[in-house]
Amino acid sequence: MERLQYNYLFPEISAREAQHVKKYPNAKVISLGIGDTTEPLPDVVALSMANYAHGLATPTGYRGYGAEQGSKDTEVFVSDGAQCDISRLQLLFGSNMSIAVQDPIFPAYIDSSVIIGQTGDVETESGRYQNIEYMKCGPQNSFFPDLSKTARTDIIFFCSPNNPTGHAASWEQLEQVVRFAQENGSIIVYDSAYAVYITDGSPRSIYEIPGAKKVAIEVSSFSKIAGFTGVRLGWTVVPKELMYSNGFPVINDFNRIVCTCFNGASRIAQAGGLASLSKEGFKAVISLVDYYKENAEILLETFKSLGLRAYGGVNAPYLWVHFPGSNSWDVFNEILEKTHIITVPGSGFGPAGKEFIRVTAFGHRENILEASDRLTTLLK
Amino acid sequence: MERLQYNYLFPEISAREAQHVKKYPNAKVISLGIGDTTEPLPDVVALSMANYAHGLATPTGYRGYGAEQGSKDTEVFVSDGAQCDISRLQLLFGSNMSIAVQDPIFPAYIDSSVIIGQTGDVETESGRYQNIEYMKCGPQNSFFPDLSKTARTDIIFFCSPNNPTGHAASWEQLEQVVRFAQENGSIIVYDSAYAVYITDGSPRSIYEIPGAKKVAIEVSSFSKIAGFTGVRLGWTVVPKELMYSNGFPVINDFNRIVCTCFNGASRIAQAGGLASLSKEGFKAVISLVDYYKENAEILLETFKSLGLRAYGGVNAPYLWVHFPGSNSWDVFNEILEKTHIITVPGSGFGPAGKEFIRVTAFGHRENILEASDRLTTLLK
Repeated sequence: MERLQYNYLFPEISAREAQHVKKYPNAKVISLGIGDTTEPLPDVVALSMANYAHGLATPTGYRGYGAEQGSKDTEVFVSDGAQCDISRLQLLFGSNMSIAVQDPIFPAYIDSSVIIGQTGDVETESGRYQNIEYMKCGPQNSFFPDLSKTARTDIIFFCSPNNPTGHAASWEQLEQVVRFAQENGSIIVYDSAYAVYITDGSPRSIYEIPGAKKVAIEVSSFSKIAGFTGVRLGWTVVPKELMYSNGFPVINDFNRIVCTCFNGASRIAQAGGLASLSKEGFKAVISLVDYYKENAEILLETFKSLGLRAYGGVNAPYLWVHFPGSNSWDVFNEILEKTHIITVPGSGFGPAGKEFIRVTAFGHRENILEASDRLTTLLK
Repeated sequence: MERLQYNYLFPEISAREAQHVKKYPNAKVISLGIGDTTEPLPDVVALSMANYAHGLATPTGYRGYGAEQGSKDTEVFVSDGAQCDISRLQLLFGSNMSIAVQDPIFPAYIDSSVIIGQTGDVETESGRYQNIEYMKCGPQNSFFPDLSKTARTDIIFFCSPNNPTGHAASWEQLEQVVRFAQENGSIIVYDSAYAVYITDGSPRSIYEIPGAKKVAIEVSSFSKIAGFTGVRLGWTVVPKELMYSNGFPVINDFNRIVCTCFNGASRIAQAGGLASLSKEGFKAVISLVDYYKENAEILLETFKSLGLRAYGGVNAPYLWVHFPGSNSWDVFNEILEKTHIITVPGSGFGPAGKEFIRVTAFGHRENILEASDRLTTLLK
């Protein structure tokens, strides 16, 4: 715990927001910070949860514990969210594993790695932890790491579409990652929490790549697909074909972790998840995704009009905006001070994020439009 | 993971139940096994969750992420259940901590300790893991350990009312535990998931003991209080006064774990939890608890009439039935074969449980009565 360098990123940003509100009590702060869904759930989804909850007060509708895994004897483990599953996977791996991560990346991978004891201390100059292989992703390599320069590790965390850069790995890139894992005897932990936002035909699951079932675990979530950030539902796929080097299937150990350290996702959330996957529900869910994608377009245009390079926003609900030569916390502070808009400083996602800020496309349309106006006026 | 001796207890029992049903397809199996609530939720609780879910489909009722801790800046961390919090606490402690547990005890403490790497191998003869201090509790010491013979450990897991024995530590006993932790510089993790079942005036929270806030974390749950086994809600208290030996407050680290490895309990479950604590809700919840207590009385009488010694059942929804000289899995099998009743073999809770079975008082009254009849007739 002592090795952890900073507070967890998002609570830290909330604290800065609170300070700002204290300083400017009359300012209308717009948050383009934490990636949190803002639009109401489809009626059919909310109704299914309400009906399930009602049923719990009846003798026929009452249910107690469910299977810890959601349903038994499948490769899909239903959970309360991707972040929680990442820490359960880290429990599975333990302290003796070496890991690789994209840089920049959502901080939960690195932080959970530090907590479980896989890393050494942080190197002050580089901002990197010892014993983590950082796979640098930026404009210089079109946000895909040079695997020929990447050291072999036991575990490769790979998030696509990437949070924060918004880059979705192409078919050819994802094939490279799978081949790299095969050659090195590594396990990929593939995070596809934003797959539903992919518009350019890139693969939405690593299992679309032949051979991936033998090398990859996939973690995903209803949070950003279906607006379930407060409802809590996700899943992790551990294929039966995925073996340790001793031929022992990984699924058995993950099953043991889930049974010992978890007691299943809320049954009410699971009812909502099923409704989201119904024909009517999924259609409604996708129209919400389209709404956030339109937000992303508006914001992309805004930053372009300011002469800034903004990446992402096409296959993901995040924009990754470049401020060459800057320090991202300074940019964060300047934007907040000038426009009362919360963003996320890129360095919160790793050393390679130092010159960037992440901007979320989750938000009410009127707020996105007002944020666009403020940015255009005040940052020009 | 390889050190873990058995499958997790309850899935193993489910598997045996499935085998039994295959063998006797027409038998009506009654489960007095896993401690799972069976009675419908109070209307007021279900309604509050249904209303919350409905609201999520409206612009004013929609909510995304909540605080990871439930509410900020308190010592109470709202969670998805006690078992999940125990594994998060183990993440906090890490592999270099020594632990003590009651023997017998709910298996999640020991299993999570093995997973995080605190233990050595299991000793075949004793059935005990190396590096765990087992605090033996049985009829010979009135189910309270002899602390004068207990070695100092960093962490003391203490569950009261105890699952499986049903013993609630008295005021004097709990004072002993707190004093022991104070003298040794240990942290107590106190599990009070069954506190609401206490009828004999024993303390319901360790914080009723003066000085406990400086040495104890308390983990608890709505599961057995309010029938939330499938809804998922619990909490953990980490007092601000609780410090590491270097003077650093434990609460900061646990807060960091919760923010990094968890994303909050489902908001719908939290709405239900609040309703359970309302005046009307709590009254209804307590009448459910009373219902299960009456079940326990019926079962206690049954075992007494068979000439068996049954402990617990007064301060807890579990009976701990002694079969001197037996092996608990044999007893489990014999009862299942003769009466089609599922129990839990005591050895699943540790070596000291070898001659016992645990019987749950959770169940529909008609099933409890039928189980009582079958036991009386067939075990006589």
